[in-house]
Amino acid sequence: MATRDAEGTRRRILAAATEDFARHGIAGARVDRIAARAEVSKAQIYAYFGDKLALFAAVFRRHAAVVVDATPFTATELPGYAVGLYDAALDRPDIIRLMAWARLEDVAPPLDDAAVAGKLQAIADAQVQGAVRVDVSPEDVLALVTSIALTWSVVGLSPVQPAGSPADHDRRRAVLRHVIEHSLTIQE
Amino acid sequence: MATRDAEGTRRRILAAATEDFARHGIAGARVDRIAARAEVSKAQIYAYFGDKLALFAAVFRRHAAVVVDATPFTATELPGYAVGLYDAALDRPDIIRLMAWARLEDVAPPLDDAAVAGKLQAIADAQVQGAVRVDVSPEDVLALVTSIALTWSVVGLSPVQPAGSPADHDRRRAVLRHVIEHSLTIQE
Repeated sequence: MATRDAEGTRRRILAAATEDFARHGIAGARVDRIAARAEVSKAQIYAYFGDKLALFAAVFRRHAAVVVDATPFTATELPGYAVGLYDAALDRPDIIRLMAWARLEDVAPPLDDAAVAGKLQAIADAQVQGAVRVDVSPEDVLALVTSIALTWSVVGLSPVQPAGSPADHDRRRAVLRHVIEHSLTIQE
Repeated sequence: MATRDAEGTRRRILAAATEDFARHGIAGARVDRIAARAEVSKAQIYAYFGDKLALFAAVFRRHAAVVVDATPFTATELPGYAVGLYDAALDRPDIIRLMAWARLEDVAPPLDDAAVAGKLQAIADAQVQGAVRVDVSPEDVLALVTSIALTWSVVGLSPVQPAGSPADHDRRRAVLRHVIEHSLTIQE
């Protein structure tokens, strides 16, 4: 029972921390607010996770990395990947906010290097197979697809951001596909 | 002389505030730190600009809006506009950071609505002239061009961000042109 309780406490702390970090950023998050929301003491948070930065690292590892890595990635189907990322961002805007705070506050999140290296290798393979343009580096392909997919998220700095009805979402998914098909992939 | 002094004080405050807001965000900025750097009293800042939010609005109006609006916009030459935005972001990363903090912290910056409306109208005109695809709305065209141009800035959430040598910059400018030419503009 102690183990099950510990797991539940851990989960409550992570959920409360995800919300607080997503809303306020890393500098702006407050451990006492997280403790109150998770119904634990600050001492328990320190005991389970360490200081605020370590707690952020745990949140990032558990949520941000998982959501991004959960989006199915097929280098020969980059338009579909972009739509998957668009939908992930729509579903979990808090995760996109976590990633944006980490970049802005220069808190290097613990990336899954193997997952990133796997994506880059898959893009390079798709280039060899003639499915992706060879005159753009795999790094730039991944960066562009990510950026295009997140155009309408909190990191898109366009001056106009319409609210986003279901019809808007469908139209944007079609636009994403179109842009990537016509600029980065090679059709048969 | 009093007027000239006032103008100099104003400028020093704005410069110090730009740096502090860009580094720490709006919640993270400290009026006393800005006052110390600008060599004025906090009371002077309040007298010149009002509270911290009003100071941010002044910084944004003076710098962020000016840098973005200073990038020459020609709807019939969107690839060139993207390269211009890329260079502006390279030249003034602090301005991109100001815009990103404003979005994340949900502090609606005072946008120049007329400038935005002018860009959207120019894109619509370019669509009528057959220079820009008609199946993407002017809002989405502007959002995508902005997002693509800022792929390698602090708002680009790609997991890989190579440092950026002069050769990298040239390659990215070429990639930007390519992506936009092949996906959003219509060549003769």
